[in-house]
Parts: sequence; structure tokens; C-alpha cells
Amino acid sequence: MKNAIVAQSGGPTAAINASLAGVIKTAFAQDQIDKVYGSLYGIEGILKNQILDLTAQNFSQEEIETLMRTPSSYLGSCRYKLPKDFSDTTIFDQIFSFFTENNIGYFFYIGGNDSMDTVDKLSEYAKHIGFDIHIMGVPKTIDNDLDITDHTPGYGSAAKFIATTVKEIGLDSDVYDLESVTIIEIMGRNAGWLAAASALARSETASAPHLIYLPEVTFSCEQFLEDIKAVQKLHKNVIVCVSEGIKTADGKYVCESTASGLTDIFGHKNLSGTAKFLENLVRDKLQIKARGVELNVLQRAASHFLSKTDIEEAYAVGESAVLHATRGETGKMMIYTRLSSSPYQIGISSTDIKNAANAEKIIPPSFINAEGNDVTDAFLDYARPLIMGEVAIKTKDGLPIHLVRP
Amino acid sequence: MKNAIVAQSGGPTAAINASLAGVIKTAFAQDQIDKVYGSLYGIEGILKNQILDLTAQNFSQEEIETLMRTPSSYLGSCRYKLPKDFSDTTIFDQIFSFFTENNIGYFFYIGGNDSMDTVDKLSEYAKHIGFDIHIMGVPKTIDNDLDITDHTPGYGSAAKFIATTVKEIGLDSDVYDLESVTIIEIMGRNAGWLAAASALARSETASAPHLIYLPEVTFSCEQFLEDIKAVQKLHKNVIVCVSEGIKTADGKYVCESTASGLTDIFGHKNLSGTAKFLENLVRDKLQIKARGVELNVLQRAASHFLSKTDIEEAYAVGESAVLHATRGETGKMMIYTRLSSSPYQIGISSTDIKNAANAEKIIPPSFINAEGNDVTDAFLDYARPLIMGEVAIKTKDGLPIHLVRP
Repeated sequence: MKNAIVAQSGGPTAAINASLAGVIKTAFAQDQIDKVYGSLYGIEGILKNQILDLTAQNFSQEEIETLMRTPSSYLGSCRYKLPKDFSDTTIFDQIFSFFTENNIGYFFYIGGNDSMDTVDKLSEYAKHIGFDIHIMGVPKTIDNDLDITDHTPGYGSAAKFIATTVKEIGLDSDVYDLESVTIIEIMGRNAGWLAAASALARSETASAPHLIYLPEVTFSCEQFLEDIKAVQKLHKNVIVCVSEGIKTADGKYVCESTASGLTDIFGHKNLSGTAKFLENLVRDKLQIKARGVELNVLQRAASHFLSKTDIEEAYAVGESAVLHATRGETGKMMIYTRLSSSPYQIGISSTDIKNAANAEKIIPPSFINAEGNDVTDAFLDYARPLIMGEVAIKTKDGLPIHLVRP
Repeated sequence: MKNAIVAQSGGPTAAINASLAGVIKTAFAQDQIDKVYGSLYGIEGILKNQILDLTAQNFSQEEIETLMRTPSSYLGSCRYKLPKDFSDTTIFDQIFSFFTENNIGYFFYIGGNDSMDTVDKLSEYAKHIGFDIHIMGVPKTIDNDLDITDHTPGYGSAAKFIATTVKEIGLDSDVYDLESVTIIEIMGRNAGWLAAASALARSETASAPHLIYLPEVTFSCEQFLEDIKAVQKLHKNVIVCVSEGIKTADGKYVCESTASGLTDIFGHKNLSGTAKFLENLVRDKLQIKARGVELNVLQRAASHFLSKTDIEEAYAVGESAVLHATRGETGKMMIYTRLSSSPYQIGISSTDIKNAANAEKIIPPSFINAEGNDVTDAFLDYARPLIMGEVAIKTKDGLPIHLVRP
């Protein structure tokens, strides 16, 4: 009988602990698996011997469920990248020595693109040295930019928070009998999946957001101002959602083009965010009240209004990784396959890690409108099922209860 | 039998529509009241004859409950200020002509400090011209800065959102094995009630926020940096909550040091930028990873995690205003009186509007620690009951349902 170790990596999400819950609860139940360890701060815990004995923690079912509703990474995370190749095997030897010493036969890595690269390299190295271990990748990222899988665990909850917040800001902006433009900046450097999700805020009685700008489309400040003028004929209060990563034709991020030459008191170039830049642009060029709002870390940390679909799927993909590993698989990443959008149905399976590692999935043209300032119905049909359902939040003293490391 | 009219004024909150629901549902049930009208965009609707016949809308109980969970102002709002005195009565005559023409015997104004000033002036003018009308103020503001009342409707829900968000950001910041400082900017120009509420995020397993800076205490950049250095000995990831309105000894807002000089449409100085300023300060002086997060309009617009206590009280205070008016009162504001904190119990009564109008309540010294960088247990005992309980959120297509004007 072998032991298992699990780690989390990359940026935190609201669903990454649901996948952890799926991994550990399922691993506890497997005859082939003895102890289940957690590596603190991703792969770094293995390198620094910072390990938690999760079996010894003897989680109650209530604790497992609290873990599923806890944002951020229970085990901590890292952005560590393994060496590119095996020309120097020091790091690999250190990791595999740890595996040997601790009788590790299963390694589950929950993370994004970089983490899948780690799964790829470690399973390659295991094969290279003939080491008997099952290494599985469990995807997560709010960015939804992992290839092959229909969507990523964590995206649905972030999308639900973004759409809810945009709907609320829409109501907030309508309050005065004045014209205004609100620019909401949403995460996404190269892929606009999160900003696109703001379109889910619309309903029969809610028109916001009125414009959406994605990194997949070259941004033009002139066209942006024209778009606002056109929308403002119909809506006094214009709500615009933008990805932080929108770029102008010269290939520069919009926020980089703060060519005002302004510097702060420390002499830093005023790298105001994208929303701030556009807010100033609107105020300057159109003389309209303008406000920039950055959703910032809230969009990945918020866990008080989770997508039930996302959390349940995130648990299931963790569970599935363990089952595939105990059946003998290694060097795989778990993926969702969409079987149907209406009714919504997905399958969970595994794919060779080579198919996933380091490929970044951007929004396909069919999901973006011809004008490049909105998404299509096809995107809404794709994304809407991912935000469906709510998770009942348990509270103490009026606040959500979370599970944190002892 | 007379008609009633209700209006909403000032900045939107998550609870102002619960008070509206309390007013209209109770007014519908009074024998003395015939029709109930709503004035759009505060008192401006009366001046521009933009009136909604709320009786004709024939709200179902479900719609009333949806209204209670809808943020922002259902009727729209304004920042209109009545003339200082009666030397020119044009505006007053216009308003009272409207009252005469529409047989108005009851006017309910839901709002903050400026709105209570309107209630004061209108009831003075009614007395002055011998006009039979009952004019009542229903308080609301997320800022909690209205005098006399124990707290304001809307504060509890904003406080709950802020504390929840700070707790989540605390988890998010702990994810990497690195040192960091996160500065969270919270609304509050002169009164720090909202930033103080961040302290409610703490529990046995959650230490954030580690420092809180309020406008009631003169801010020192040097002491701020010293405070961070001291906290970082205990907590790698320091979470700091600051009111947007903190000022240095020269009486200037901290963010004014960035010298943007921008003012909003009401002539208020644009205060956004306090977190950004402090983020740069920390990065520059301490060479630590720093991040500024502005909660921005989310703290007043968020309605997907409401305080049940706040929403129920906001309804009750609206209900009570109608009952006091039909009993013959006028020129009054409704207030909460704290009968007990444990168990929490309040009374709702009325007070002469002169006691409330234009007085701004700041945090008393007993609620601020000796170092001026945190709140006391006395504040926590005061504030905690206000965030208790959750409101079940009804959703459609995964998002909260709101009630908007037809």
C-alpha cells in the first residue's frame, strides 16, 4: 500500500478547496491508499519538507463541507516552475527522494497552466527513472484558459460573482437622473472569459453591461468613445466591462498608454489601471461623469455567493482524479466534456497531460460579436449553466465559516 | 382621506428599498390614506411632476419581498438641497402646490443627512403657511453617520459585506509563503464606521484585518509604516483597512498628496486613491509586495449577502414612520434606540427632526484603541448584532432577482 500527497498551486480560486475536498475524501476511502499527505505551498512543501498529515486530521463531514466553501488554497500555493529539462536533475532527485522516503505512490496537483507543466515534467521524470507513481493534474483557474477541458473549476463561481456584481452596479448607477459611464475592470490578461461572463448580468429588466471589451479584440480608444456615445442614446448610465488585458493596435496594454507623463510622489510612472485610464478618457473627451471600478481580488476570493454547479463539479473532478489514479493512470489531467448545454450535462474524464500543459485557451471568434464590443448568444449558452445554483453558506457571528489549516 | 407620497434620496444602499417596502405596504393598509404615490429621483420628482402611482401597481407579496432584497433606490434618488431659508419661496410654493393639487397629506422621505434637512425645511414651511400635512423622515445611509439614532438602516448590510470581503481577502493573501501588505480602502469621508466594521472579520481562525485607520484619528505615514513593521513580525501577510477620508496632520486627505485635484459632479473632492497611495508608500519604503484594493461601490450596492437584521429593521422603520404619521406626527425622524446589546434588542420611535438634521455622527473615542490603529471591543459589541442573520436570495438563471420600476 502506498501513500498519497496532494498540493495546490497558482492563484487562489473559490473552488480549489472543493477539488481538494474531492481528492482527500476519495483518497481516504481507497484500499490502495494508506496515508494522505498535503504539501504546503504547492511543490515547495515537498522541497522544503513542509508536509501536513491529512489522514491524521480526521476531518468530519462538516469540515469537508466547510472546506468546499472556503476560498483560497487550504494548503497554500506557489508559482514555482520546475527546470525546463533534465540536464540538471537536482530538483527532480530531491522530489523523488521525498517520494521514496515517504512511500508516495500518488501525487495530485491542483492548479492552472504552470501546475500542469509540473505534472507533465514529474511524470516524464518518473518514466525516465522507472519510478512507480501515479501523477495526476486537477485543473483550476478562474481564468478558464486551460485548453481541452470544456471549462475550468473556479470559473463558474468567479463568473457568478462578476455577473451578480455587475447587475448590482447597474442598479446603483441608475439611481440619479444624470448621465454617467461606469467602467468595470475584470481580471484576464490574455483571455477575456471573466469579462465576457459579465454579459450574464443581463435579463429582461437589467440591460447592463452595455459594452464588453476583451483582450481577444484589438482595442481602439476612438471606437470606444463612439460606442459609448451610441449606447448613451438609449441608456443614460452606461456600464462598460473591460478585461484588464485589453491592448491597442501597437500591442501595448491600454493602461500602459497612460502617456500623460504623470508620476506619483515617488517618481513612479502613474500605472493607473485600465478602468482608471478609461474613466479619465471618458471624462476628458466626453465630459460625462465617469467612474472606474476594479473588481480586483474579490472576483477570485469571494465565496459567499458560489455557483453550486462549479463547487460540485470541482469536488467531482478531484474525486475522479483519485479514481483514475488508483485504476493505474498517470501523467493525465482531468477534464470536463460538455455532453449537452440544454439540459446541461458534462462528463469527467482524463486526457494526456501533453494535451493540456502550457496551452492557453482564448475566446473563440464565434463567442464575440462582429463589432468586437460584446459577446454572442452562443457564449451565453456556453457560460450560463456554469453559474447555476447556489451553495448554502453557514455562518458564525454573521460571517461565513471557513476551514483553515491548524 | 388624503394621499401619501414617498421618495428616496442620497446615495443608494442595500436596505433603502426595504424601508420603501415598509412605507408602502403599511400605507396601503391605512384607512386614513387613499392613494400612495412615489416621487421619482427624490424631491425632484415632485418639482418635475415625475410621479408613480404605487397603489395602481398592486404589488404582490412576492414583489414586496423582492423589493426588500433589491439594492439601490427603486424610485431613483437625488442630491437636491432646498433653499437655506424662506426669503425666496418659489421652490416651496411649487412643492406645496403639488401637495394641494394631489391632495397629499403624508410625505415620507427616506434618506441621509441632506434628506433630513429637507424634511426639516418642508415641515417648517408647512407650519409657516398652516398646511395640514404629515412629513416624516426615514433614515438611511451606509455611513452610519446620522446622529440620535443608534445606527442607520443600510449600515448593517454594508458592514456585513465589508467584513465578509475582508475575511475572504485575508484568506486570499495568505496563499503564498511570502511577505505582503494588502491595503483595503473603504468608504467614509469624515466618519469611519464602515472601515471600523472590517474588524468584525476577525475570529478564532482569522486574524485580518491587522490594522484599521479611521478619519477620526490623524494619520501619520511614519507611524503607519512602523505599525506595519510591528505587525509583520507576527503575520507575514498584513491586511490594513483604511477609510478613504483619512487625513494627515496638515488637514489634507492622504490621497490629496497624489494631487489629482479632481472633483465629482457635486463638487466633492475625488477621494479614490488612498489605497493606491499607501500601496506605493509601502512598496517604496519597506520594499514589500503591496496591493491596494478599493471596495468602491460594491460596498453599498452588494445585495447578495444581506444582513437579515438590517433588512428587517429597515422595513420596520418604514412601517413605523407611516404609523406615527397617521397618529398625527410631523417634522419627525424615525430612530432606533438600543435597549440591549446582549440579547440584541432595539426600539423604534420618532424624534424631532431638529435633533437629527445635518448633525454628523463620528466614531466616539471609546470605540477606538489607544494607538489609533484599531477599534475596541466596545465597538465590536456595538456593531456585531447589526450584521447578524442572512436573507435568502431568490435567483433566476443563477443571479439574484431584483424589482425595478416598470
